Amino acid sequence: MASLQAYETALDYAYAPGIFPSMECIRKCPERALRLLIHSKAGNSRGVSELITLCIKKGIRVEEADRALRRISGKDNCFAAVVFDKKSKPLEPHANHIVLHETSDQGNLGTILRTALGFGFHNVAVIKPCTDVYEPKVVRASMGALFSMNIHVFDNFDAYREKYPKQKCYPFMLNGAQTLDEVAIELPFSLVFGNEGKGLPDCFQDIGQPVRIAHSQEIDSLNLSVAAAIGMYTFANQKE
Amino acid sequence: MASLQAYETALDYAYAPGIFPSMECIRKCPERALRLLIHSKAGNSRGVSELITLCIKKGIRVEEADRALRRISGKDNCFAAVVFDKKSKPLEPHANHIVLHETSDQGNLGTILRTALGFGFHNVAVIKPCTDVYEPKVVRASMGALFSMNIHVFDNFDAYREKYPKQKCYPFMLNGAQTLDEVAIELPFSLVFGNEGKGLPDCFQDIGQPVRIAHSQEIDSLNLSVAAAIGMYTFANQKE
Repeated sequence: MASLQAYETALDYAYAPGIFPSMECIRKCPERALRLLIHSKAGNSRGVSELITLCIKKGIRVEEADRALRRISGKDNCFAAVVFDKKSKPLEPHANHIVLHETSDQGNLGTILRTALGFGFHNVAVIKPCTDVYEPKVVRASMGALFSMNIHVFDNFDAYREKYPKQKCYPFMLNGAQTLDEVAIELPFSLVFGNEGKGLPDCFQDIGQPVRIAHSQEIDSLNLSVAAAIGMYTFANQKE
Repeated sequence: MASLQAYETALDYAYAPGIFPSMECIRKCPERALRLLIHSKAGNSRGVSELITLCIKKGIRVEEADRALRRISGKDNCFAAVVFDKKSKPLEPHANHIVLHETSDQGNLGTILRTALGFGFHNVAVIKPCTDVYEPKVVRASMGALFSMNIHVFDNFDAYREKYPKQKCYPFMLNGAQTLDEVAIELPFSLVFGNEGKGLPDCFQDIGQPVRIAHSQEIDSLNLSVAAAIGMYTFANQKE
């Protein structure tokens, strides 16, 4: 890591822009925090002071980097960002998983991570092609939730299935055979959500137990992050 | 309505940018559609052809307006928009309501309207100060859902309560006394959701039955459109 460039997928590090996401990184996985960047004008911000104190305590290098902060965040008022190692732990084999299949919107992806953490899911599989989960906008939309989770990217769904064959899969589809309120939940489960526009391919009808969230005919479909939230909330509350 | 300016709250008309929202307006409330604007380069779009045919049948004026479309949508590739009358019918007194208190994000507001329609809610009260529900971005994010609903803006919550005193109110709050899965549902109800950052003011603790959506301590709160979706889904499915 020589000079800090704008984020690119090929890099093995990424940025958490903003005080809250930076704090989450340093608190939840300090071993992945490589540097803290601060703005020369952040002097009086209490949040930035807390970040600096914490970094010094944990031996994380702090540096002033106004231009890098602007490049990373695309904004003039980003006062702090942590540079972090993208390497995440593998998914836990006996836990429940969230599987995001070809998600394309950065805001949706971040929101889904935040919601997942809120309902106790700590293992997320991301299936390509999909939005890079380490894009600064995703990290920010997640409010740093990804620092409390194991996230792994797979080339395709088969690669995921081979690695975790014991998961009971519940693909969420507009024409899923069972509605969310009638489905029987088996552990450990994987909730599978498709792309914003296309949903999941038809072949997911043959995988596990396809589920639909009943809604009126007055709308075509629910927003992805909304559907994922309703699915995760229901499974999280029924499994107990 | 002389020349078409960029949208402003003071206007008594608004714009539905895009083919899908325009179609929803003309199908669901043709009496509110004042004009259809189309782009000179939209010639081969099937969606635009359908819009034109429908407008001719219903006696709605169609005109080419490239510059107005760019001004309204902020984009070069907006091929169609309906100019519509903002006047909406009052909320139905015996129906269930959604109450949005000081919502500030346009995308959230649009997504909540779309979700509400999906779960059979056709009456939405919006409490000031809040994002203008007729902003083009809200209309687009709602996918035109607002054309299938009665939406009314109130100066404050008391004005809403005075007009609809028989509604059982359920304010959604981080410290609501009952969790969503234990609350007893009385009809007709009003689900009340607060601002993205601040939530609802403390005084809502004394109104109706405050509800919280249980989530882990690992996040501060759920995203507003996510919380509203979970609340609406649960109430829509338990009331039957």
